[in-house]
Amino acid sequence: MPEVSKRGVRMPESPIRKLVPFADKAKAAGKKVYHLNIGQPDLPTPKIAMEAIQNIKREILEYSPSEGIRSYREKLVGYYKKFKIDIDANDIIITAGGSEAVTYAFLACLDPGDEIIVPEPSYANYTAFAIVAGAIVKTIPSKIEDGFSLPPVEEFEKLITPRTKGILICNPNNPTGYLYTQTEMYKIRDLVKKYDLYLFSDEVYREFCYTGAPYISAFHLEGIENNVVLIDSVSKRYSECGIRIGALITKNKALRHNVIKFCQARLSPPLIGQLIAEASLDTPEEYMLEVYNEYVERRKFLIDGLNRIDGVYSPIPMGAFYTVAKLPVDDSDKFCEWLLSDFSYENQTIFMAPASGFYTTPGLGKNEVRIAYVLKKEDLAISLKILEEALKVYPGRTK
Amino acid sequence: MPEVSKRGVRMPESPIRKLVPFADKAKAAGKKVYHLNIGQPDLPTPKIAMEAIQNIKREILEYSPSEGIRSYREKLVGYYKKFKIDIDANDIIITAGGSEAVTYAFLACLDPGDEIIVPEPSYANYTAFAIVAGAIVKTIPSKIEDGFSLPPVEEFEKLITPRTKGILICNPNNPTGYLYTQTEMYKIRDLVKKYDLYLFSDEVYREFCYTGAPYISAFHLEGIENNVVLIDSVSKRYSECGIRIGALITKNKALRHNVIKFCQARLSPPLIGQLIAEASLDTPEEYMLEVYNEYVERRKFLIDGLNRIDGVYSPIPMGAFYTVAKLPVDDSDKFCEWLLSDFSYENQTIFMAPASGFYTTPGLGKNEVRIAYVLKKEDLAISLKILEEALKVYPGRTK
Repeated sequence: MPEVSKRGVRMPESPIRKLVPFADKAKAAGKKVYHLNIGQPDLPTPKIAMEAIQNIKREILEYSPSEGIRSYREKLVGYYKKFKIDIDANDIIITAGGSEAVTYAFLACLDPGDEIIVPEPSYANYTAFAIVAGAIVKTIPSKIEDGFSLPPVEEFEKLITPRTKGILICNPNNPTGYLYTQTEMYKIRDLVKKYDLYLFSDEVYREFCYTGAPYISAFHLEGIENNVVLIDSVSKRYSECGIRIGALITKNKALRHNVIKFCQARLSPPLIGQLIAEASLDTPEEYMLEVYNEYVERRKFLIDGLNRIDGVYSPIPMGAFYTVAKLPVDDSDKFCEWLLSDFSYENQTIFMAPASGFYTTPGLGKNEVRIAYVLKKEDLAISLKILEEALKVYPGRTK
Repeated sequence: MPEVSKRGVRMPESPIRKLVPFADKAKAAGKKVYHLNIGQPDLPTPKIAMEAIQNIKREILEYSPSEGIRSYREKLVGYYKKFKIDIDANDIIITAGGSEAVTYAFLACLDPGDEIIVPEPSYANYTAFAIVAGAIVKTIPSKIEDGFSLPPVEEFEKLITPRTKGILICNPNNPTGYLYTQTEMYKIRDLVKKYDLYLFSDEVYREFCYTGAPYISAFHLEGIENNVVLIDSVSKRYSECGIRIGALITKNKALRHNVIKFCQARLSPPLIGQLIAEASLDTPEEYMLEVYNEYVERRKFLIDGLNRIDGVYSPIPMGAFYTVAKLPVDDSDKFCEWLLSDFSYENQTIFMAPASGFYTTPGLGKNEVRIAYVLKKEDLAISLKILEEALKVYPGRTK
């Protein structure tokens, strides 16, 4: 039997999935499991998107252009304009989800051995896509005590080597919900400029900024237009995770030329997904507002509830629909597993993502978890109660 | 401005696309262009697939499981059984088209520097996906004089090194239409067994075998079950190129485990595409037969027509919907460009793919073109006439 690739062996296991077998067992045993572990919104997809599906009348489900359907890319220009992101349809390359956008960004910018710097905790799959590209992710811890704000610029500079090709940020952040301030974004800009780096900016949660603080896109930063690679996706904003439509946006023409070669090799992004995504751009403001208000309420409810539990601390996330909370436990990997295997409260339990999987530095996040507020308030209320009761009896409780 | 990746620079330009700007110019000038260059079937998608789209009634377009929807995978087992391919639903991993299947096969089997052997001419994007994986493609020429049959086993053995990890075949073949015989498949099996290699077998054209000779799947070969990685796609068989649904199938459990990590990193294959593909499995036999008969007729018509033109030779392709033909020209790249830029017959011209792009060995295929018979017979008739007239006046005609 031939050997599998070492690269595959090195691929990290998803922190969201590694406990799935335990959750399955709990469910099989009749326990109700509340899923706080995943980033799959529970809110309905806009009606206009579902109608677009019904309106598909074609003879052939043919390939779309490799860079995406022109009319969709043109319409996206108006969408970005609303966020004061001034781009051209030619700057936009449509991808199979944000995942493919990150993958192609890495493949087209980085060669094996090249390095990127990422503040941690961070979305675990960046590491996976870096492994695909043979690139090296160097992380700088951001700290829960600082509300996960940007680590000092000096920490970035310490990691810069001749192989450093870029910085990656996710803003608003998954998993922390942190939103970078203008001052922080200027610091990132100056770094990017000084060392002539790529700035990979994953901004798929831009609709979800809750504090009134401005959302600063990487494209708002002057003087680094050719360094910015924006990663986007319609998954979260329209509850359309399954259509696999994202985008890689850059004003850097040479880079686009490189990216498009990877796009041409895989021929076409999903056709039907693009038709749905294009229709979704006409989603009424009321839908967006309703979704927004729902997350605002859940966020307040969840964070208040968490901080009321003895020994638990969560900073107030400014965006996205996650928070990273600190728990009075020895090891959140063990605790999350124990919740599924050993604990139940009125035959119910919760499934949270241990934060360790979002850190690269070993040992970090050991008493932290990521909680996604993709459940309705009533379910969040029960989840909080379950957490509170669980912490009272968990054998590895620390204080 | 930071540098783009050298890997991207090395990505080959698609032989199908490199003349597109010339075709666009021809069209802009009012010329009618017959597209013989692409593998996009012109035949309608089955009605049952289009109805499945109308029947999508869901609240949320959510992620599907990373390895694909269970019911679809289970139903596929019955589809493969019809071809005497005996697999289990667990052996099937659903991908975003055959492209993603090849990419993940390479990523999960090959490390940078590992080598695979591919008979040429071959589908040009294999090289692109190998570049993504950092793997090296070594090619063995098959010859038009031999009807593109399998090169001698000794030629394969000459190329085997300690880094050789696999052999890749496309059967029925794109671009040649060749169908490997049982004897040839046994030779491949023995090689794979002797050197414990992976056998990557791209069989997306299995519906299109025209001569009555048996289609031998890699899974029909005994004793190498754990070596076989089957690549599949619904694109060609149901005219569903745009839904991006393919599959990677292997009985090798360790390999599947490795592949699934790449699948999990990108979260989900397209949801709606899977719903359509699942429904397509109930496509009536009459549809499949009609499509088949149509290609049989076109094939006869095209090949007869080609061989009647002075100086032109095409072997009789046994499968797929392509042929590689030899033309009496100095350089088919120049000739195909000239057809678009300089030639017209009654204000019409043809767009063919120069075969050079399907060869890795420099200089090969210089007087060959790939012709896809994805046009109706009347259009093929005009195309043949255009080719005949063009060859009469082409300045680089050789004999």
